[in-house]
Amino acid sequence: MTTTSETTLSELVQRHESVLSEAAAALADRSFFTHYPDSPSPRVQGEGAAEAGLTAYQGRLDAPFDLDQPTTGESVGDEVSPYGPVLGVSYPRLDIDAALADARAAMRPWRDAGPRARAAVCVEIVDRLHRRSFEIAHAVMHTSGQPSVMAFQAGGPQAQERALEAIVAGLGEQERIPAVVRWEKPGKDAPLVMDKEYVCVGRGVALLVGCNTFPTWNAYPGLFASLVTGNAVVMKPHARATLPLAITAEVCREVLSEAGFSPALVQLAPEGDGETLAADLALRPEIAIIDYTGGPGFGGWLEREAGALGKAVFTEKAGVNSIVLDSTDDLGGLLGNLAFSLSLYSGQMCTTPQNLYIARDGLGTPDGRVPVAEFAEQLGAAIGRLTGDDARAVELLGATVNDGVRAASAGLADLAAEAGGEVVVPSRDVVHPAYPSAVVRTPGVVRLDVSREDVYTQECFGPVALLIETDGVEQSLAQFVDTVREHGAMTAAVYSTDETVLERAREAALDAGVALSENLTGQVFVNQTAAFSDFHGTGANPAANAAYADAAFIAPRFRVIATRRHAPA
Amino acid sequence: MTTTSETTLSELVQRHESVLSEAAAALADRSFFTHYPDSPSPRVQGEGAAEAGLTAYQGRLDAPFDLDQPTTGESVGDEVSPYGPVLGVSYPRLDIDAALADARAAMRPWRDAGPRARAAVCVEIVDRLHRRSFEIAHAVMHTSGQPSVMAFQAGGPQAQERALEAIVAGLGEQERIPAVVRWEKPGKDAPLVMDKEYVCVGRGVALLVGCNTFPTWNAYPGLFASLVTGNAVVMKPHARATLPLAITAEVCREVLSEAGFSPALVQLAPEGDGETLAADLALRPEIAIIDYTGGPGFGGWLEREAGALGKAVFTEKAGVNSIVLDSTDDLGGLLGNLAFSLSLYSGQMCTTPQNLYIARDGLGTPDGRVPVAEFAEQLGAAIGRLTGDDARAVELLGATVNDGVRAASAGLADLAAEAGGEVVVPSRDVVHPAYPSAVVRTPGVVRLDVSREDVYTQECFGPVALLIETDGVEQSLAQFVDTVREHGAMTAAVYSTDETVLERAREAALDAGVALSENLTGQVFVNQTAAFSDFHGTGANPAANAAYADAAFIAPRFRVIATRRHAPA
Repeated sequence: MTTTSETTLSELVQRHESVLSEAAAALADRSFFTHYPDSPSPRVQGEGAAEAGLTAYQGRLDAPFDLDQPTTGESVGDEVSPYGPVLGVSYPRLDIDAALADARAAMRPWRDAGPRARAAVCVEIVDRLHRRSFEIAHAVMHTSGQPSVMAFQAGGPQAQERALEAIVAGLGEQERIPAVVRWEKPGKDAPLVMDKEYVCVGRGVALLVGCNTFPTWNAYPGLFASLVTGNAVVMKPHARATLPLAITAEVCREVLSEAGFSPALVQLAPEGDGETLAADLALRPEIAIIDYTGGPGFGGWLEREAGALGKAVFTEKAGVNSIVLDSTDDLGGLLGNLAFSLSLYSGQMCTTPQNLYIARDGLGTPDGRVPVAEFAEQLGAAIGRLTGDDARAVELLGATVNDGVRAASAGLADLAAEAGGEVVVPSRDVVHPAYPSAVVRTPGVVRLDVSREDVYTQECFGPVALLIETDGVEQSLAQFVDTVREHGAMTAAVYSTDETVLERAREAALDAGVALSENLTGQVFVNQTAAFSDFHGTGANPAANAAYADAAFIAPRFRVIATRRHAPA
Repeated sequence: MTTTSETTLSELVQRHESVLSEAAAALADRSFFTHYPDSPSPRVQGEGAAEAGLTAYQGRLDAPFDLDQPTTGESVGDEVSPYGPVLGVSYPRLDIDAALADARAAMRPWRDAGPRARAAVCVEIVDRLHRRSFEIAHAVMHTSGQPSVMAFQAGGPQAQERALEAIVAGLGEQERIPAVVRWEKPGKDAPLVMDKEYVCVGRGVALLVGCNTFPTWNAYPGLFASLVTGNAVVMKPHARATLPLAITAEVCREVLSEAGFSPALVQLAPEGDGETLAADLALRPEIAIIDYTGGPGFGGWLEREAGALGKAVFTEKAGVNSIVLDSTDDLGGLLGNLAFSLSLYSGQMCTTPQNLYIARDGLGTPDGRVPVAEFAEQLGAAIGRLTGDDARAVELLGATVNDGVRAASAGLADLAAEAGGEVVVPSRDVVHPAYPSAVVRTPGVVRLDVSREDVYTQECFGPVALLIETDGVEQSLAQFVDTVREHGAMTAAVYSTDETVLERAREAALDAGVALSENLTGQVFVNQTAAFSDFHGTGANPAANAAYADAAFIAPRFRVIATRRHAPA
């Protein structure tokens, strides 16, 4: 058994050496890199892959999902697709005491394997996840409400790229410390010579708290950053988005076992809707690292309570993403790009723009200033072009994920009235041709005055954007900085043809601590980031205390333990 | 003015380019490197340097120390040398509100200068500190009680090496992210091309809380790690060891001003004995980073309270450093090495061994097992050889730093009685030939049984070691792991000629999370670490949550803010 495992392990190290080195090079210069193609085309993913994935997904439904973990004997499972169907999957409840003991015991051989073997095993896991992208896509679609192609791309290959990025970043951070060194200090007679060894040791068991909207994309960076640095991981999925992480856990455990490690390095801790398992786990002494994506209430609690206990806590919460609209020489490009960003997944991305700051006298263009009302009308028309046809619209909008989003988008007129503003782009109900009970809405826009900070400093999650009239670009930038500093943002953008304004916007973004996209008019969108090149989040404003995947996201997950002795004479 | 500063800045970048690259290479392979020679010889430091340093130090005494900072108008200053003399230096109290506002305002140009310019300015500061090593040595000696050569070496050049290490680690961590990149995604027709920029931005104002025993050595890593990553620093020195950091602040401010930056990037916040300025500062919203060396009480408070507020908190507190004594083929070397480690600075290093685990049947040697009583006697003799002559002894022992240490070392017999053990090496009072009022004591050793965990899991700071009799090396290793895990340790060592025992000791050190020195018998001591090669602390046990200077000590001090736009056609 040991021999078999070692063979497998060295095979894995060899198999994944080139991708690890190519990805490391890309990460070092932050250039374009992709290893997991994200086109769902059968020419790319293989003939029959889509059909096999659907079959595999359907085989999960209305059945228990067994991971061979220590369980309490009870089961949970409350997943209902935002598109309507009840999933009917039941998950055995994890026996936490036994699971954490198993996780700790599993860490020693994982530590001893060293960073490169861990990285190779992790890449093998991601490769296997890639082969199950269609199955995972259906699971993501029917838990998050993402549209199908997005569920495939963001839930599959793009999440896998972020996983690979975390693996490569974690490997690099560990391999920057040599495993052995001979240290020679010149002396009067002979040099003083010491042999030293350095071992990277994980911090403990990592807790990963998944979210409803991006169950894999937001989970993989923390999962693989923790694994590659020598930790075991317990994944506590969102009660309404358990299946994507259950499949992920299954694949992790299968590969870990094959490579000769304990599957307890990755365990799933499912819970029923409304339970508080994440809080209970977070305070356990075995838990040393916490990754969290979700609402700011519990995220703030984790930062405070687990932070006070000295755990490494990485959170992505919520913010008020902002765009400053000053001027453009490509109004059509701006409108198309912005309409797409607002419409994609019904604005249910943590990166979707919310606050659109525009001067009262409108947007500068080569043909003169476009008044605010006219701009709003054109934005509505651009959204209409993307979402006017129900069958096509649902492929962009997906479905609303929960009642909170549904209420917010339905309450557009109330919001406008409360804000002393007006609905300038109404939200339209879309009927899903295949899932008539899904609630699908096009993004609506409310126009309001810059004085109504009480309204626009709140996050309106979902298909709602605010067009905020300011006294001019100066005030737009100032409000942008203030709002991001105090309420956080995952993304920001500016449109201006004036280099001075762009410079000021860059300065404002540095002050606010948010990444800035400038004059996006083509096929790059403010709410999307590319692994290996773009950081997701910054950690520098209240929306998130961490970024995928900078050194601060990686380095605190392990420690270096050294030994030294006199070199043999 | 701007032109002059820019010239100066580019000169600094050029001047320090080679040392930065040499030090970076040494850090990458953790090989021997030194830039600041630590011999106090006039041939090395320059003729007259020692005398000039003494004169400069004497010029500080009985006078106000003005740093041209915003002040409240009041002064503080309670420093009394552990050797006897009252220093009589008074320090204007910092106006905290004004100081923090100045610090924040100073950060923007510091950020805009970029990592390399910041690193060059930092190296220039350390170079200037190096030229003032003798002055600083006197200040360190007469605040910490360190012996004079140690005060020079550890307070001067060796602290400066740790500073350079932090600068190089910080520069490397930032320069691993390219400043600009052109990103090209292949497309059907034309590639999608984006230009991106990345800026490293400091987290905020850093608070550095200094300690009494190593006012510069323990301060410089945090100070320079924060500075080079773009933060301003407020240093709150120990009330009884203010002068070394006041001189440091003076040098920092002088160089920063000359280079065209605000001196408010480094400010000194002195306080009187018994005040709580560090706690007040730690909770200020402007403070984003905290470095602390000192007792576990306040260190734990900082970890909890400031950690809960999301601040990056780096602590070094206290622990129970352990040595497992199994066997040796060089008993003389072992005894000399151990006696030196116990005697240096009267055991007042956070790295001094305390718990010496030895099997009841004694220590294995080529000549048979040396019984515990005989080993203790020989250890006492070895200590006696180092400290038998008062005039020579004080150059190794220094002076006891405070009444707590004095009481502990005076209470050796009480400790032995309480522990049901015996004093096997008595502590001797030494009369300092130049400072008769200094309290100087040689290290004492109490022999006790492994069952008395209640005694030996407490830190006995100062010249007190415990010789703990166990049932054998198995139990020695087990107790070592338990004690370090629960009570922390900065250092650990093992003596054994048995490769199996050494392997088990390495495993134990990995499990306990502490660095291990094996069979030290020459001129390397368990309580000393070499910058660029040895980490100081691990962050993996309760003694410290950070290590000088791993990536986890550097990376959380800055964030990366990116901008992106379509590349020009």
